[in-house]
Amino acid sequence: MSIAIAVDAMGGDFGPRVTVPASLAVLRETPALRLTLVGDEALISPFLSRLPPAERSRVSVLHTLEVVAMDDKVAVALRQKKQSSMRLAINLVHARTVQACISAGNTGALMAVSRFVLKTHANIDRPAILTALPTMTGHVHMLDLGANVDSQPEHLLQFAQMGSAVAEALDGIARPRVGLLNIGEEEIKGNDLIKRTDELLRESGLNYIGYVEGDGVFKGQADVVVCDGFVGNVALKASEGVARMMAGMIREEIGRSWLNRVVGALALPIWKGLRQRMDPGRYNGASLVGLTGIVIKSHGSADVASFAQAVRVAVKEVEKNVPALIEARLGMVEA
Amino acid sequence: MSIAIAVDAMGGDFGPRVTVPASLAVLRETPALRLTLVGDEALISPFLSRLPPAERSRVSVLHTLEVVAMDDKVAVALRQKKQSSMRLAINLVHARTVQACISAGNTGALMAVSRFVLKTHANIDRPAILTALPTMTGHVHMLDLGANVDSQPEHLLQFAQMGSAVAEALDGIARPRVGLLNIGEEEIKGNDLIKRTDELLRESGLNYIGYVEGDGVFKGQADVVVCDGFVGNVALKASEGVARMMAGMIREEIGRSWLNRVVGALALPIWKGLRQRMDPGRYNGASLVGLTGIVIKSHGSADVASFAQAVRVAVKEVEKNVPALIEARLGMVEA
Repeated sequence: MSIAIAVDAMGGDFGPRVTVPASLAVLRETPALRLTLVGDEALISPFLSRLPPAERSRVSVLHTLEVVAMDDKVAVALRQKKQSSMRLAINLVHARTVQACISAGNTGALMAVSRFVLKTHANIDRPAILTALPTMTGHVHMLDLGANVDSQPEHLLQFAQMGSAVAEALDGIARPRVGLLNIGEEEIKGNDLIKRTDELLRESGLNYIGYVEGDGVFKGQADVVVCDGFVGNVALKASEGVARMMAGMIREEIGRSWLNRVVGALALPIWKGLRQRMDPGRYNGASLVGLTGIVIKSHGSADVASFAQAVRVAVKEVEKNVPALIEARLGMVEA
Repeated sequence: MSIAIAVDAMGGDFGPRVTVPASLAVLRETPALRLTLVGDEALISPFLSRLPPAERSRVSVLHTLEVVAMDDKVAVALRQKKQSSMRLAINLVHARTVQACISAGNTGALMAVSRFVLKTHANIDRPAILTALPTMTGHVHMLDLGANVDSQPEHLLQFAQMGSAVAEALDGIARPRVGLLNIGEEEIKGNDLIKRTDELLRESGLNYIGYVEGDGVFKGQADVVVCDGFVGNVALKASEGVARMMAGMIREEIGRSWLNRVVGALALPIWKGLRQRMDPGRYNGASLVGLTGIVIKSHGSADVASFAQAVRVAVKEVEKNVPALIEARLGMVEA
């Protein structure tokens, strides 16, 4: 099986300097992979000259100079930048030239353009942003992380169905445990959205385990956690913020005295182990689920290792054919 | 100035075993403090017998056997447990016998009973739960953390006014920077609640700095961060979950080999420094703001050091007379 993936080489804070070496690293480790790098050929080509011929033959460049800027309005990206590297990468997915695309560009634009070009599955009203997050016991798939605010219960139900299909496909879990993100105070438990979603999920046929609180997400209580995009984005960013704060505080404590500095250096294996389990790079690559094709969003600030991880997510989703699985699951639910 | 505080000695996971020694520790360090310990005298008295007479004279016990259980419904706590240690402690605040009370009991019950007994300020529709959280640069006051779901813009405005008054009082900041918790995607920025609240805050006369994202909370971008209770509770719990997960992972990494264990032991000063800055105990003691009296909520699982911290928050709020400050600020806004 051949895996064809388009990369928006211009997206993100660093553009081709990160996206191209990262994509080529995954190309090297994935013999079935064929890459289309979309963007300014003059900036992309230098990275290709050193490739062995066998690898070079699996890479093509789709040249364009138009770029969606990080601060471009969605309307601009959608209506005025029809030759942008982001748009052309998505077009390749729509044309079935490739099976997935990846971009580190502007999330709002990526979501809007993907939705416009690829459309959602028949039974899905809105796409959602899904990502894997580390937990004490492994990882959890959480959605929506910011594509939708003011979600309705039926949207959260759809998110649950999609998240369940993704966990099944990517992790090989037969019946993923689906939790609904909620707050814990007994009497005031949940808002109206949560209560009505809870009812829908109980009747959904999914392996619904009920409410999960913010801390339960990281205890690994569920394989899939569902929430509105506003809440999910705040929770995700807050979590990243705390992790970074703790890492920063550890660094500050290490720098506090020469003794601490020595111990900090000795503790390298501990930091490495921690980093391996927590590294945002390891968890880079959010899926825009609910679309008829695979679109993966990388952090804008991703480095080479981190962007490569997003490419690997795309490879895995192609291998498992996630959109077809989601569609099949939605069809079953319908039937 | 004398500071009189009532402690619900029976609340929390450990009852008097934690609440009484913790309260007595603060009594020792605070000569102006007088304590009323509310609960089962048979369980409380043993802790008092060892006290020096000068301290013993500053402690009284209000005996009652009725207790609000952690899983009691709010209606039960409110209507059927009128002699509970929680209720009597709040009654003492209402009667002006004490200036503040503290409980580690059921949050929903504490909120409902406090609101019923003490009432809110004239210009406040709903009380909110406020707590201080550590940031890279110090700490931030965040509210609401779960008292209200489905808040309206005018409620968030009131939370901002109250949070600003608290930061001013407790931290001595002249014009605390107030941020509104939001998500970052440009186009889909915020839901309707956020956009309307943003308008109100711009005209509020507060030192409103605009939107703060989840990670910005922990970067110390604002002195006060305002949000709906659902979002705030999820963000708080998620943050606690990540912090615990990281601490757990560090422990696991240390246990992974004998070398790591040695280094882990050597790194004790680093862990101590980190714990001192991050310790949930150090940040224990959430304020139920918006009421006519001071009510402090401790974590149910608080240990002695941690519950003592909540008592210290009560002492500080009495010293600064936070409810009067909030009322004054609201009056000014009105005028």
